[in-house]
Amino acid sequence: MDSDAGGQPDDADLMAAVTELGAALRELVDASVRTAVPADELRTAAAEARAVTARLAAARRPVDQLPALDDPAVLRRVFNPVDGAGSALAPPLAVRWTGDGVAAEAALGPAYEGPPGYVHGGVSSLLMDQLLGTAVLAAGLWGMTARLELAYHRPVPLETPLVLRARVVGSRGRRTTATGSIALADDPDRPLVEAHGLWVTPREDLVADYFGAITNASGQYAPPGRPADAAAPADQP
Amino acid sequence: MDSDAGGQPDDADLMAAVTELGAALRELVDASVRTAVPADELRTAAAEARAVTARLAAARRPVDQLPALDDPAVLRRVFNPVDGAGSALAPPLAVRWTGDGVAAEAALGPAYEGPPGYVHGGVSSLLMDQLLGTAVLAAGLWGMTARLELAYHRPVPLETPLVLRARVVGSRGRRTTATGSIALADDPDRPLVEAHGLWVTPREDLVADYFGAITNASGQYAPPGRPADAAAPADQP
Repeated sequence: MDSDAGGQPDDADLMAAVTELGAALRELVDASVRTAVPADELRTAAAEARAVTARLAAARRPVDQLPALDDPAVLRRVFNPVDGAGSALAPPLAVRWTGDGVAAEAALGPAYEGPPGYVHGGVSSLLMDQLLGTAVLAAGLWGMTARLELAYHRPVPLETPLVLRARVVGSRGRRTTATGSIALADDPDRPLVEAHGLWVTPREDLVADYFGAITNASGQYAPPGRPADAAAPADQP
Repeated sequence: MDSDAGGQPDDADLMAAVTELGAALRELVDASVRTAVPADELRTAAAEARAVTARLAAARRPVDQLPALDDPAVLRRVFNPVDGAGSALAPPLAVRWTGDGVAAEAALGPAYEGPPGYVHGGVSSLLMDQLLGTAVLAAGLWGMTARLELAYHRPVPLETPLVLRARVVGSRGRRTTATGSIALADDPDRPLVEAHGLWVTPREDLVADYFGAITNASGQYAPPGRPADAAAPADQP
């Protein structure tokens, strides 16, 4: 879900700053793909980018410590590469609950290009994995992707408003199936891409095995889990 | 394939500068996810990033004009979000021909994180789509992804050397099937993720329909196609 889904983080000022930097980096990535400036200007830009990197590298978290703003229990992952407000890789999708599933709108620029003029087929699968997984979480379940199947009916155009949808279609024990689609926003019921997948909640021993080293910013063990294991977000079913 | 696969671009100096900027932006994206600097430093970094964006935005290509360095006929797409040397989103993979398919090595940082400590399942699918599609191209065929199926056996750890492989398993008329995997580099025959997919070469009327507006930097119509339709790259079969 988007960064508001689980309520505001404790540090609203830091959240605003991370969001501002994420937006600035997305604009920079976009400009780097569209630019037609000469080689010497590209080299100057690279040197300036390295100076920004040095500023950010002055203090770093260990990779197994969650970012200070993250709270997996309320679905807040600020650097998620699909919906993270702080991610330079993410469009980012603002995923919302629709009553029977989740939906998001997006228009993707040339940084996401595969065939000329169209979204990379793997980018469509990246977005679908995130959206179907979010539908699973939004239904009060939790799991890791076990299977994902994509059918590409028509190419997904760049720079065109899209609608992405996903919903849970079945759940039994630790296994949840979900389905979803990508369509043009002005033709939402004719899918360009359809996705179907299986999410499996790891057994407790596997959670400990997979996530035993993960801590929050306070150093406490913080594995992922079902939203219901923590306080339920306000807009969840 | 990597940027050397189709021989060197005409403008080696521009290629070096685009590669340098791509590398600098990847380091910046990585630093933005790991940083623990305070909010005011993040805001300063955002302002500096916007200045770099302004420098690059001084000259822009239209989105339906290929980048000057690109030559789809020899598989060179410098901003491809998986293997493009100029892409801030790409690891980037350096894909090579192995005799019966293609392979690449990578270690992915926290910008690609899904579950804490692991690569996002959708990122694995993004990499697999690119690798299987490259195997199809490297076999002298060409197509757009029609189906992609992923089986996730075990989570893919961050910051760990991985090996990615793909090969064509069947071809009939316009339809080519390919398979591939992601494994730990030190346990390459035990796949963490397996992929299987179908690539379809569009009919000529669809190529004209999909890519009719695409030009190269000289303004000439430049649709994608089979490598065999142009001079075959030196390291192709």
